Amino acid sequence: MKLTKTLALSAAIAALPALGMAEDAVPTGEAAEHTKFIFTTLLFLIGGFLVFWMAAGFAMLEAGLVRSKNVTMQLTKNVALFSFAAIMYYLVGFGLMYPGEWLVEGYLGPFFAITSLEPVGVGADGVAVDYASAGSDFFFQLMFCATTASIVSGTLAERIKLWPFLIFVIILTGFLYPIEASWQWGGGWLSEMGFSDFAGSTLVHAAGGFAALAGAIVLGPRIGKYSKDGRVNVMPGSNLALATLGTFILWLGWFGFNGGSQLAMGTIGDVADVSRIFANTNTAAAGGAVAALLLTQIMYRKPDLTMILNGALAGLVSITAEPLAPSLTEATLIGAVGGLIVVITVPMLDKMKIDDVVGAIPVHLIAGFWGTFIVAFTNDGANYVTQIIGFAAIGAFMFISSLIAFLILKGVMGLRVSEEAEVTGLDMVELGMEAYPEFHRGG
Amino acid sequence: MKLTKTLALSAAIAALPALGMAEDAVPTGEAAEHTKFIFTTLLFLIGGFLVFWMAAGFAMLEAGLVRSKNVTMQLTKNVALFSFAAIMYYLVGFGLMYPGEWLVEGYLGPFFAITSLEPVGVGADGVAVDYASAGSDFFFQLMFCATTASIVSGTLAERIKLWPFLIFVIILTGFLYPIEASWQWGGGWLSEMGFSDFAGSTLVHAAGGFAALAGAIVLGPRIGKYSKDGRVNVMPGSNLALATLGTFILWLGWFGFNGGSQLAMGTIGDVADVSRIFANTNTAAAGGAVAALLLTQIMYRKPDLTMILNGALAGLVSITAEPLAPSLTEATLIGAVGGLIVVITVPMLDKMKIDDVVGAIPVHLIAGFWGTFIVAFTNDGANYVTQIIGFAAIGAFMFISSLIAFLILKGVMGLRVSEEAEVTGLDMVELGMEAYPEFHRGG
Amino acid sequence: MKLTKTLALSAAIAALPALGMAEDAVPTGEAAEHTKFIFTTLLFLIGGFLVFWMAAGFAMLEAGLVRSKNVTMQLTKNVALFSFAAIMYYLVGFGLMYPGEWLVEGYLGPFFAITSLEPVGVGADGVAVDYASAGSDFFFQLMFCATTASIVSGTLAERIKLWPFLIFVIILTGFLYPIEASWQWGGGWLSEMGFSDFAGSTLVHAAGGFAALAGAIVLGPRIGKYSKDGRVNVMPGSNLALATLGTFILWLGWFGFNGGSQLAMGTIGDVADVSRIFANTNTAAAGGAVAALLLTQIMYRKPDLTMILNGALAGLVSITAEPLAPSLTEATLIGAVGGLIVVITVPMLDKMKIDDVVGAIPVHLIAGFWGTFIVAFTNDGANYVTQIIGFAAIGAFMFISSLIAFLILKGVMGLRVSEEAEVTGLDMVELGMEAYPEFHRGG
Repeated sequence: MKLTKTLALSAAIAALPALGMAEDAVPTGEAAEHTKFIFTTLLFLIGGFLVFWMAAGFAMLEAGLVRSKNVTMQLTKNVALFSFAAIMYYLVGFGLMYPGEWLVEGYLGPFFAITSLEPVGVGADGVAVDYASAGSDFFFQLMFCATTASIVSGTLAERIKLWPFLIFVIILTGFLYPIEASWQWGGGWLSEMGFSDFAGSTLVHAAGGFAALAGAIVLGPRIGKYSKDGRVNVMPGSNLALATLGTFILWLGWFGFNGGSQLAMGTIGDVADVSRIFANTNTAAAGGAVAALLLTQIMYRKPDLTMILNGALAGLVSITAEPLAPSLTEATLIGAVGGLIVVITVPMLDKMKIDDVVGAIPVHLIAGFWGTFIVAFTNDGANYVTQIIGFAAIGAFMFISSLIAFLILKGVMGLRVSEEAEVTGLDMVELGMEAYPEFHRGG
Repeated sequence: MKLTKTLALSAAIAALPALGMAEDAVPTGEAAEHTKFIFTTLLFLIGGFLVFWMAAGFAMLEAGLVRSKNVTMQLTKNVALFSFAAIMYYLVGFGLMYPGEWLVEGYLGPFFAITSLEPVGVGADGVAVDYASAGSDFFFQLMFCATTASIVSGTLAERIKLWPFLIFVIILTGFLYPIEASWQWGGGWLSEMGFSDFAGSTLVHAAGGFAALAGAIVLGPRIGKYSKDGRVNVMPGSNLALATLGTFILWLGWFGFNGGSQLAMGTIGDVADVSRIFANTNTAAAGGAVAALLLTQIMYRKPDLTMILNGALAGLVSITAEPLAPSLTEATLIGAVGGLIVVITVPMLDKMKIDDVVGAIPVHLIAGFWGTFIVAFTNDGANYVTQIIGFAAIGAFMFISSLIAFLILKGVMGLRVSEEAEVTGLDMVELGMEAYPEFHRGG
Repeated sequence: MKLTKTLALSAAIAALPALGMAEDAVPTGEAAEHTKFIFTTLLFLIGGFLVFWMAAGFAMLEAGLVRSKNVTMQLTKNVALFSFAAIMYYLVGFGLMYPGEWLVEGYLGPFFAITSLEPVGVGADGVAVDYASAGSDFFFQLMFCATTASIVSGTLAERIKLWPFLIFVIILTGFLYPIEASWQWGGGWLSEMGFSDFAGSTLVHAAGGFAALAGAIVLGPRIGKYSKDGRVNVMPGSNLALATLGTFILWLGWFGFNGGSQLAMGTIGDVADVSRIFANTNTAAAGGAVAALLLTQIMYRKPDLTMILNGALAGLVSITAEPLAPSLTEATLIGAVGGLIVVITVPMLDKMKIDDVVGAIPVHLIAGFWGTFIVAFTNDGANYVTQIIGFAAIGAFMFISSLIAFLILKGVMGLRVSEEAEVTGLDMVELGMEAYPEFHRGG
């Protein structure tokens, strides 16, 4: 601004277009463009490593909520699902989700998409480069694909065999997720229709939840979960410290999940929006946790830690469809409703004898619907009908395609471990390795 | 710089004021201002998520240091305290701490302060915006408020009831912390007096420690901690791996705590100062850990892991009042003295029959005093008397107000769980849920 | 670019050199230089805290893979080794590794090098400052030194005494690592010869592995590990959830390890390279995990979680020598070979009766060789012979000097705990403190 004033004193040069740079107060020239490029790339990298960290969060949450006899298996599934997701998304998914993607070497067409990223030292040859690094975008998007798979593993824990599960992960991360995500984020029909899902309440969370639901139906409940007299037997998690750690990890990672979804950080408007998203994401989680704490205190006279953890996560899922537009108060309330949803719907699923070991369906699918729906309230550009249509379309696609995949896997190789393995524990029978070999098991 | 040289060749235009931009070597114009804005906002966001992570660190540290029968309760308290802190600080605390705060929508006066942050896409309308995003500042400051509450929960573990504790957290995070912090960081009388507390050795750590001390006195020690014959009974933590994890998490988060407190990253001077702070913070923690290791080896012939962990934390608290000015050597020594303080004062508290389950009072209050005091040695602008006055003022305010709050809570609803609950464990009696239901408890 | 077009319309001023700024597309002037400085410093700070986090990863991995009777000792060693590394690297190591280092106060010559970093508020006096903050560089480099020591502790677990181990750490981090690392990163003879090791497959990982190998040979195997009839007795880790958490932490930290080693982020070429490194690092880990999963499934009919974890880590080590040049496919395959190496070489070490408790030698030394060797395939500037020479030189130096150090320590103070301590557990005998005092030990 100082420059502008100085210029005003110099009438002789006032007409020089070059000086418009200062007068218009718009960042121009390569230096500013490059700075924007670096900032947005950095957003993807920081966002990406935070969402990567969510893979550890899911692993800890699930390992803490299963019984100790199945912990090694749950850990194995989580490490393996992330690894397969990473490979499938690069081999197939990214190209399928963003057909004709920019700035990648070795693009082999929509099905075997990328063998490499932009060249080393891009931009040094003077080629114009705008927006952000393709590699950072790929890294960030990959983590969302892997998250979808992480959601499934918790629901199906303690009874699904390792390999059918991993084959489903390959199908999910290579094909199902990229296809449905491309409808919105790849510029497909949902985005053209005006569907609004900022960071993926529907595209990631509900999508994963629908796949989990299909799997839970095909697989059936764990032995002993539902007595013939209609009683629901609690099968308590073996390590609530681990489950709490997992929740904190997910909460932390969610700043990257939602904040990175701003997809730009090169202007003050963008970085202020990222800040707003961080604050809203945090308060929604807090709202969800407090709501679940209060409701379990009222309903059961005793607060329930696993519900509080799932309440925080449901708050996070709820704000994910629109973490930018709400005020802090709106964000807190949106998250709080998410927390209430979890407390109310967990027993409902049990009544339907759908056995969801970690509560992923209430947290990701049902709170995901709530978050997607309420966008129409806080976001001027969205409307309720479109939100419902988008959610239903993705839900139908994910549920039906997952159902078919699970049914085929069941027919071809069987989904469930043997009854003996389930009773004894998947760890010893399937893997021959206990997670806590020295801690006496009372269960 | 190349531009300047090129210009020198062109005498004809040497007098053009516009070129002063290059010659004066001062960043000017909107682009540079915007870049600074983005950098400082980014510092708050990164610093903020690192300090958020400290909430997980406290949860793990405390869950590891309590007995397994109380782990679920300790986890519940930690998740809930952070959630209540997040809501109270936005509803009341932020406005109380920074009256007349800038750039927020819906400012409702000092007591019910903010309902929203700056508008979406701020700056796009050409309004001049300087410094950093209000949302990022709020996000960062919120985490400090929550940290103060986290400090209290460890001291009072294994005997305080959930709801009185959470009501105290509401009072602390909504009112007590914002009031005392505003004396310094809100531009209040302490800052005018010349008190120096860079990142909060006193304002956060000792403040939390004084609240914890008041609570410990009102609450009394755990049953069986102090025998009638004067013996102190060790009640070992149930999971030292978790306690170590918690310490590493806190150590990591502290880079954000101290580094982010530079409050600016838009110049090379600022980012170099942030770097210096990172290095000093790290070496102070190392100094504290090594000092505690050596002193426990000398005093007890056996190094004590919990002392080493608390030594590292005390080193971190000690450097927090002035992480910028010290040299690496000074920072290491300041941290080392913090570590020695912990080893020496933990038994002293026990002699006074003040039962501090995790050692939070030595770590946060006493090392907090040391860190605040020694600022006068490394910082030219500080003096010992002012440092002591500031510490005493905040200590008196926090101790007395917390004492009153705890006494009222004790009178109205009772603070302590029943003797049966304390002996059996808070988890089963108060929550009906064990943290490790399958691991046999020998204790 | 818009500016350039506008200018093209204004022939009258086309000759003004000042406008060359836009036409040449080169960032010029102090503002752009300062921005680059801040970005690169930020890369070091983010990279540094991520690599710091690896210290927690090693601690959790190792605590999970030892038996519960030795967990407190393993945690103590990990906290202490990082703390000693931090102090030794500042007292001696940094100055030894980068003799004549820039921008530090109180430089005391190559052996007692730095007492402080660059002054507070550097650059404010108009002194030209380029590249990055010395403090951030120190912070980043320190973490690499500490990583080298972390590698050693796992191999020697469950039998080495605390103090001889820590004295070795002091020697390693103050002298051995800085000397060998200076051959390449300090501008020494290896770098002049054309040796290529981007982020330290050899300089950090294999170097640590060779030190571990020397220690394992001098120390001998744990009691009962190898029966007289040649049988290898499995001694299962006590907490695979912790080991998995540690692996995820290391995986996350590795983005900083490899990405930060780009050493610059101030141009689009640099930040795009950092992005490429993040993506390659991730896919190499995934490749390593999947390869170990498949090979253990084929060889043993049961996937082995500890092998999968070590496979991921070996993938990470393998890509560390050149995380930039490979395509995604090449990176995945390089990592996968790393994973295969672990599965194949773990039993080979056992045949040689070299007892490596956590598998650090296969992961860091052998996969480190593979990663270093294959640089010649993906990197035009490297050749196989030079890679082998560099690896052999560092290996010989580290192995021989470590061997001498361990032999002297053995002669002077003894390396191994008593047989009684080893059988009973190091925790109770050496430290008098159990990690999990309430969890029954069956082993």
